[in-house]
Amino acid sequence: MNIGIVGLGLIGGSLGLDLRSLDHHILGVSRQEQTWQRAKELQTIDAGSVNVEILKDAEIIFICTPIDKIEPEIKKIKECGVSEKVIITDVGSVKKEIVDRIAPELWRNFVGGHPMAGKAESGLEVAERNLFVDKPYVITPVETTPNEAILVVEEIVRSLGAKLYRCSPEAHDRAVAWISHLPVMVSGSLIAACQTDRESLELAQKLASSGFRDTSRVGGGNPQLGAMMAKYNRAELLRSLYQYRQNLDWFIDRIEQKDWEAIEQQLQKNNQARTKFLEV
Amino acid sequence: MNIGIVGLGLIGGSLGLDLRSLDHHILGVSRQEQTWQRAKELQTIDAGSVNVEILKDAEIIFICTPIDKIEPEIKKIKECGVSEKVIITDVGSVKKEIVDRIAPELWRNFVGGHPMAGKAESGLEVAERNLFVDKPYVITPVETTPNEAILVVEEIVRSLGAKLYRCSPEAHDRAVAWISHLPVMVSGSLIAACQTDRESLELAQKLASSGFRDTSRVGGGNPQLGAMMAKYNRAELLRSLYQYRQNLDWFIDRIEQKDWEAIEQQLQKNNQARTKFLEV
Repeated sequence: MNIGIVGLGLIGGSLGLDLRSLDHHILGVSRQEQTWQRAKELQTIDAGSVNVEILKDAEIIFICTPIDKIEPEIKKIKECGVSEKVIITDVGSVKKEIVDRIAPELWRNFVGGHPMAGKAESGLEVAERNLFVDKPYVITPVETTPNEAILVVEEIVRSLGAKLYRCSPEAHDRAVAWISHLPVMVSGSLIAACQTDRESLELAQKLASSGFRDTSRVGGGNPQLGAMMAKYNRAELLRSLYQYRQNLDWFIDRIEQKDWEAIEQQLQKNNQARTKFLEV
Repeated sequence: MNIGIVGLGLIGGSLGLDLRSLDHHILGVSRQEQTWQRAKELQTIDAGSVNVEILKDAEIIFICTPIDKIEPEIKKIKECGVSEKVIITDVGSVKKEIVDRIAPELWRNFVGGHPMAGKAESGLEVAERNLFVDKPYVITPVETTPNEAILVVEEIVRSLGAKLYRCSPEAHDRAVAWISHLPVMVSGSLIAACQTDRESLELAQKLASSGFRDTSRVGGGNPQLGAMMAKYNRAELLRSLYQYRQNLDWFIDRIEQKDWEAIEQQLQKNNQARTKFLEV
């Protein structure tokens, strides 16, 4: 197939590498001339441009830009006269607001998607083969999504070796609020809190071990992405944060009351719940 | 030297392995007959017993029991007539309450210690050589601690390859509240919060990736240890929790106000602070 990729960062670049190796013809678009040229050099794409007109020959297009650029890119694609039969899918980490803005009015053949395959670093240079193997890849079709478009996207996702899941945009956004967006705020608040005690900071820094490193990791990640998640998944994130604050207050209250037995029991439940949660 | 170790779990066992390899003679004490026998089999100790009387020949004793057993074990050691010249040190993760209970009345030659070298698993079977290499090892002498006792403990700590730090019990407890005990409660509240949404649980579980895994790790760890940390470091832990709640509320407030710029700026600060914090 002729496959278009708009946005040649970690996800777009890794898609290009995998899909080229599966004998697809990859057309890459980047706002920076040098990015698509570098992508060609790295054999991530077959041809590239800064202009979406190159996508006129594509049968399916992956939009791999930051969340706030997805709708504008699809508008550009529409304006330049790409056939409405072309299937468009995205890789944004939030789905409801994106799908609502696009399907069916702006682009009927649109299938929302979200590969859960992040890395600490971002950008084309860290793109890699097999990034999606055994990772969850959610697609979020809606009532108006043509069945054939769903099938084509599913086929490609399977060919990447990813674990395919299908659910509504709402169910996706609620689930990722819990396991992805809430952790960013929880972990971010931890880093911010530690910074307030200037006197202890130096010693704390010396003693910080893997526990602090792990708990603070996602709160010290990509700032733009973190703010964007909050913006585009605001309602679900707030819902999870209100619940989290209740659980935090429960711990504070039990410590104030010196109820060590209740704390041990809750941590025991956590231990079992986490093991079960992660054993899938 | 003749070195006693009371409590043959991960820390006690690993100390035994390292100190034996440095040609010390290791006397092990465990409440379970089979534990010290297994330790002997594993060449963790040279001789063992369920009775602290075996420690009469020791020059220094490491108490490696859970926090709430440290004082009772030292009382037993005193009662059985071990010479007061023998140096005793512990490995508890909280220091002020322990040191206050022991030095100088119960045992003058006592030096509080805390090797920061945990593992996910616990127990003698996961003990290993070189566990302390390049890990922080804090000692917390007080005004009444004899200088010679400090020097002997410091010498042994250095011989383990650990990074030696010396501070007051209070400074230790405040610092570990931030980087060790607060993360347990923050992470524990995350696991508890996720469990409340039964409807989303199945999908959330399927989508959970390394971000959730890392942020939830310490909150799903040893329940007894978590409750004990809270009990013995209550004041400092509460202090850090109150501060944390303020930082969490700041994030909630900014999301409610749709102030995405402030969130991005704070996450940017976090990103830099965490990098600096962990680069020691």
